[in-house]
Amino acid sequence: MATRDRTIENLIERLGRLPGIGPKTAERLAFHLLRIEVDEALQLARAIEQVRAAVKSCRQCFNLDAQDPCGICADAQRDRSMLLVVEDPREIARFEGIGYRGLYHVLQGRLSPFEGIRPEDLTADQLVQRVKQEKLKEVCLATNPDLEGEGTARVLAERLAPLVAQLGVKVTRLARGLPAGSSIAQVSASILADAIEGRRTLS
Amino acid sequence: MATRDRTIENLIERLGRLPGIGPKTAERLAFHLLRIEVDEALQLARAIEQVRAAVKSCRQCFNLDAQDPCGICADAQRDRSMLLVVEDPREIARFEGIGYRGLYHVLQGRLSPFEGIRPEDLTADQLVQRVKQEKLKEVCLATNPDLEGEGTARVLAERLAPLVAQLGVKVTRLARGLPAGSSIAQVSASILADAIEGRRTLS
Repeated sequence: MATRDRTIENLIERLGRLPGIGPKTAERLAFHLLRIEVDEALQLARAIEQVRAAVKSCRQCFNLDAQDPCGICADAQRDRSMLLVVEDPREIARFEGIGYRGLYHVLQGRLSPFEGIRPEDLTADQLVQRVKQEKLKEVCLATNPDLEGEGTARVLAERLAPLVAQLGVKVTRLARGLPAGSSIAQVSASILADAIEGRRTLS
Repeated sequence: MATRDRTIENLIERLGRLPGIGPKTAERLAFHLLRIEVDEALQLARAIEQVRAAVKSCRQCFNLDAQDPCGICADAQRDRSMLLVVEDPREIARFEGIGYRGLYHVLQGRLSPFEGIRPEDLTADQLVQRVKQEKLKEVCLATNPDLEGEGTARVLAERLAPLVAQLGVKVTRLARGLPAGSSIAQVSASILADAIEGRRTLS
């Protein structure tokens, strides 16, 4: 059998290592990269090289940025009494987009007994250190509202509990309830249960 | 708003140009490329660079290979009387895998009035030239068994018709019928219609 050129096979293999990219998709992307203008293809290669040359993890909050401390940690205008704890640096753009202007702490993942991800695999110790050292009024545990995100928040809350008493810092969690624009007839039972449990007093 | 580093934005934008990769997937892939070992990420960049430096289109059959003529066209062991016409170079690996050992001709696409793809956008003229010049016994139009693939095969068959009379070359099409391993109760009406229409005499 005439084998395919090894540089093509290598590209398919490399693309297939990306998350969510199966062998068929990898093949399709590889042949796309062969078909388009050579400069267009090389721009992607260069974008990967540049991002890895430029971007590093912030030593304070573990956000990804070209500078360390990152643009957010270095910004004197931010509210330094508020710390939002997120799983992933991608989520920072979401909170920035809705106007949040405090600080962040990126956990670099979530606890998962199933996948063997323990507190020491995350930046949990660094979070505890920050809460000890920085003059925070509030730490909001903004992990995802699912099983592992909830578990992670619970473990972090336990580790922060002594500091709550000692430093008077408040530990909070993002609200759970009905998603804006949803209909009560359509949402799942667990969303509705959250909405009832978290109901607010209006007057 | 603190903007994301421009090299990250650039990588997301570049990944988002790939077919089937939406903005959310592009973001996920970009942050994956930021999280993995730097060498692992750079290997992908290098794979793209290497493939574009090494691989070219074969001037005879339009297959993609590091050599021109490609490994298949240059192989003296192949059956040079049989030409399999495919839409895409990817499909060559499929036919090689089932033991086909003739030659190929890559159309580089399929006719699509809808997308404005005309015969001159494909390698149709070059196919006609090859059928005139090479001593072929058979040209099998192996375009896909869908609307555009069928249309492409029909147009090519018309263009080859004068040569069929003149040179005695046979123009064929891949068989259509029940897919191996399928069940008659499950296949679509059009598959079953193909199977009845193309039924073979057993004795």
